[in-house]
Order: sequence, then C-alpha cells, then structure tokens
Amino acid sequence: MKELDSYKEMIEQELKSFFSLKKEKAKSISPLAYDGFCKIEEFTMRGGKRIRPLLVVVSYLGCGGKNLKEILKASISAEIAHSFLLIHDDVMDDDDMRRNAPTVHKILEKQYNKSISKALALTLGDLGACFSFEPLLNSSFEAELKLKAMKEIVGVIERTCYGQYHDIIGEIIKTDEEFIRIIHENKTAYYTVAGPLIVGATLAGASREMIDRLTQVGIKMGLAFQVQDDILGVFGDEEETGKAASSDLIEGKKTLLIVKANSDYVNKKIGTPLSKQEIQKIREIIVNSGSLEYSENTAHRLLQDARKDLQKLNIKDNEKKILLYLVDYLEKRKS
Amino acid sequence: MKELDSYKEMIEQELKSFFSLKKEKAKSISPLAYDGFCKIEEFTMRGGKRIRPLLVVVSYLGCGGKNLKEILKASISAEIAHSFLLIHDDVMDDDDMRRNAPTVHKILEKQYNKSISKALALTLGDLGACFSFEPLLNSSFEAELKLKAMKEIVGVIERTCYGQYHDIIGEIIKTDEEFIRIIHENKTAYYTVAGPLIVGATLAGASREMIDRLTQVGIKMGLAFQVQDDILGVFGDEEETGKAASSDLIEGKKTLLIVKANSDYVNKKIGTPLSKQEIQKIREIIVNSGSLEYSENTAHRLLQDARKDLQKLNIKDNEKKILLYLVDYLEKRKS
Repeated sequence: MKELDSYKEMIEQELKSFFSLKKEKAKSISPLAYDGFCKIEEFTMRGGKRIRPLLVVVSYLGCGGKNLKEILKASISAEIAHSFLLIHDDVMDDDDMRRNAPTVHKILEKQYNKSISKALALTLGDLGACFSFEPLLNSSFEAELKLKAMKEIVGVIERTCYGQYHDIIGEIIKTDEEFIRIIHENKTAYYTVAGPLIVGATLAGASREMIDRLTQVGIKMGLAFQVQDDILGVFGDEEETGKAASSDLIEGKKTLLIVKANSDYVNKKIGTPLSKQEIQKIREIIVNSGSLEYSENTAHRLLQDARKDLQKLNIKDNEKKILLYLVDYLEKRKS
Repeated sequence: MKELDSYKEMIEQELKSFFSLKKEKAKSISPLAYDGFCKIEEFTMRGGKRIRPLLVVVSYLGCGGKNLKEILKASISAEIAHSFLLIHDDVMDDDDMRRNAPTVHKILEKQYNKSISKALALTLGDLGACFSFEPLLNSSFEAELKLKAMKEIVGVIERTCYGQYHDIIGEIIKTDEEFIRIIHENKTAYYTVAGPLIVGATLAGASREMIDRLTQVGIKMGLAFQVQDDILGVFGDEEETGKAASSDLIEGKKTLLIVKANSDYVNKKIGTPLSKQEIQKIREIIVNSGSLEYSENTAHRLLQDARKDLQKLNIKDNEKKILLYLVDYLEKRKS
C-alpha cells in the first residue's frame, strides 16, 4: 500500500536522524561507548517491517491527530523498544542470526570473546531501552499527553515481559490453550498491535472509550497474526516464508496447533531433531486431530471480529481503510 | 543521623505501598505472572541503604521543594531502577548471593532449572525496569517537571549502561586511569549520587545552574566513595566490611589501586585464586609503589572539593548539613 510505504520511508529517516543526533553523547563518553552505541544503531537500521511505528502513526491520524511530523518523530520509540527486546531475546535463546545478520551477542563474541559477549549484549539491550524513551519524550506534544503515552508504553512493555516469562517457562512445563493465550495476548498482541494503537490514540488525545475499542481490535489482529504465524511455521511454503517449515517443531515451540493436537507423540517429538518422516507424521496428526482446522477457524473468526469492530469504529475513513487493508493482508498472508 | 533514618523508614513504606498496589495487575494476568512479580518485590524489600531515594529527597528539599509526601512517592523510582540493574548485574556475573540471600536467577534455578533461570531473571530485570518509571509518572508533580525528571533518569541509566559496558570489557583488556575514571564516573558517581541529586533538584524546579553544580558535587562524592570502596576491598577490616579483604583481588577487579601500582606481578595474579602469601605480596606492592597513598589522597581531595562546593551552594541549611554529614561519613567510613 502506497501510503504505508511512504510512512515507512519517513520512519526510516526519523530513525536515521535520531541515531545521528544521539551519537554525540556516546562519543563524548569514549570511543568504546561509541562502539557500543553503533551496535544498537546498526541492529536497528538492518530493517524490518516497522509495523509498530506504522501503527502508532495510523492510529494517531485515525483519531484525528494533525501533526504528522511530530507523530513520526515520536513513533520510533516503538521501534527502538523493539530493538532492545530483540537484543535481549537473542541473548536468552542464544540465537545466531537476526534479520539476515549475526545477532548482537554473536558480533560481540567475535570482537571480544564468549565469556563477556552475552553480558555486553545484555547491557546494550538495557542501553537501547533508555534510547527508546527519548523520541517520545523529546517530541513536542503536550506534556500531559506525553506522560499518558509514556505510561501506556511502559505498561505495554510490562505485559510483554509477563508474556515472555510465560513463554520461557512454557518450554519446560505442560501448557494448555489458556497458557498459550496469555503468551500470545501479552507478548504478541499487545506488543505488536494493540500497544502501538494505544500509544498513537493517546497522543491524539482520544477518549478512554476509543482507546479501549482500539485495544480490542489490536488484540484480535495480534492474536490472529500469531495463530497464523504458527500455522505457517509448520505448514508454510518454505520458499515463501523464508524459513524451514519444520523449524518451529524442532525448536519445540508451544503453539495452539500443538496444544490442540493433544498428542503424546507430538509432545514427545517436538523440541528434538526430527527426520522428514517424523515431521510428516506430526503434520498428519495436527491435520487429522482437527487441530489445524481449529487454528484456521480461530484466526478467521478473530479477523472477522476485528473487521466488524473496525467498521463500527468512529475513526477517519482513510485510516480505517488502512487498518482494514491490514486485516485483509493478515487473512491472506502466506509468509 | 536521625533525619535520614526517618526518611529511610518512610521510603520503606512507600516501596511496600507501591508493590502492594502493583500486584493486582500481575494477579490479573496469571498466577505465574504474580509469582514473577513477587520475586522482584522480595528482592527489593530485602533491604539496602536506600541511598538513591534518600538523595532524591534531600536534594528536592534542599532546592526548596515543599511536598515531602510526593517526593517520597517519586523517590522510589530510583530504588526500583537499582533493583532492575542489580538483577541484570547478577545474571552477568553469575553471582550466587545478594543482600544475604540467593540472587534472583539462583532462586529461579532452584524453582525451575538452570537452562531457563538466567533468561527468566533477565526478563524480570526488564519488568523491574518498567516498574521503576511508575512511581515518578504517578506522582502529582507538574507534568513538565515529571517529564524533565524522566529525561534525567533515562540519561542517568544510559550513563550507567555505558559505564557497565566499559567495566565488562575492562575484565579482558589492559586498562589505564582514564578507563577506570569512565567506569567510576558513569557506573558509580552518576548512578549513585549525582543522578539522584539531579532528579530531586529537577522535581523542585531548580535552575540549570543549580542542577549542574549539584551534579559536580555528586560526581566528586561518588568518585570518592568508589576509590575508598576499592581501598576497603583490599585493605579493609574483614570484620567491619563483612567481606573477605581479598575478594576484589581474586575477582580481578580493575581499580585505581591496581592500575597505579603498575606491577606486572599484580596484573598477572589478580583474577586468579590467591594464597595468603600472594595477597600479602600484592598489598605490599600497592603500598610500596605509592599507589595506596595516591588513592587515599585522591579520595581525600575529592571530598575536600565536594565540601567546599557544598558550602558555597545556595541550598537550604538543613539539607546542606545532611549532605556535609554524608561527605564526613564517606571520609571516615571503615566499611
């Protein structure tokens, strides 16, 4: 969509300007501080869909906000917070790659050594968290609105942490549908969709009722996104998704698909190295148990609900169209 | 000092109230979320000197602030930020104990297992960071003042992270006096003394000039504290300091004392297991090289300067007396 592409381009520019201004402080401390700073900048500028700042902007404009320049500036707080959480997430999972390049702690491992690389990456994540508040704090919105938006951002990251806490413990305990919902609602839906919509609406001075209704739309879109992501993670076209369709199974990711299959075989096998035959058998169990259909129906129903909610929502036509476009995109996506 | 003791008691009460209110949100998410929340609460309530919130309060009152109730409420942001950084610090160093009890990741290791304990503790640290902003954001100070104070807090944590980044890298590279100063200025002085003074003064609406002058006093006090801490870490009375006087040497902590001794023997030995004879020899080198005297003189000079600066400072007499009392305390402390 042309409008989203153009906002995305502007968001990239804002990120560039932010880091360009910010580097002076790091340089004033020491060359080493600047080196650490550059790692956060490089990681953030690798790209990504920028979906969180985009949703901040769309929600703000949809709720009648008029200052496009300032909302673009403030919106990147959401993207930098994303960097901070990804850097920490990669340390926790000891992942090697992110956005087609080595993760921050892997870069540090090469530059220094393994004994300190994770501590350094953890510290850079904390530093990134500090950075993330600045664009919002420095924007020229009214002080009361900025404070409200700050509280909302902090509340959303708080939920993300609670979701993450469940996700990690979910690796070693038996989980049920409710447990999965808590992870998805907090770690995906609030974090990726509802949170940005809340922050944008708050900065536009929207009413509590409007914010609550946008939150509900965001949760539905976010949950649907996650359920579909999990389906694509097992049944997706490897060429289209860009990752092996077995990686979720080998990682042992607990998803609605797995929980609903309710199969001892599947529960025993996931999280271990799997042969092609075993992967095929797991897929068959997920299909034959009705679990795939359950997930597909869940995603479809959530998106239908989100669409209905959006149609009734009293926001600007243009932004309503954009959000409906995103719902359609989620419905059809193959990657 | 009676006044400080009474503020400290009130700060404990504020912390209790904060966690008591805050637990409802965690409970509303899930019992597991509540369990994670309780770990942050327990860790914070273990005690500590509460020096950071105390300095926020003293600085605020010294700069003419009148609302003791609200500054006590806002001040605990500094203490909760301290919890978050300690939880992360303990993960990085893989420390077992903190404040006479197991560290957060050690508790989690026992409750779950070693494979996920650090990831969980890291996540609880991030959650603690979110908590830390709330007391300030929820206090009833004017919106503009709260925003200014938020920026200052974020700036101080940013400096702390840069200091930490140096500290970690300092473990594996050769360091000099300037490198040590960067660590101490950012990780100790700003974080423990200057930062709290800045935040308190900001909330009192103090002028930029006053804030800058308090910052300088805080940096001097903080640097002196660290230099003395390092002296006590090698020459302190074990019964008074409560830790083995060799622990800094065995840990391999890079201090002004070590750098100034400029001894190949010392540089080679620290960070390894040490016999009593070796510890004695290191102490002798530090004394005979003049390094101990250099550190003692540095601390003394910094405190003298801080005292002079304070005397000239246009703050309330009562709080000036408290800050001078703290300078004297730093000069004489044996533990």
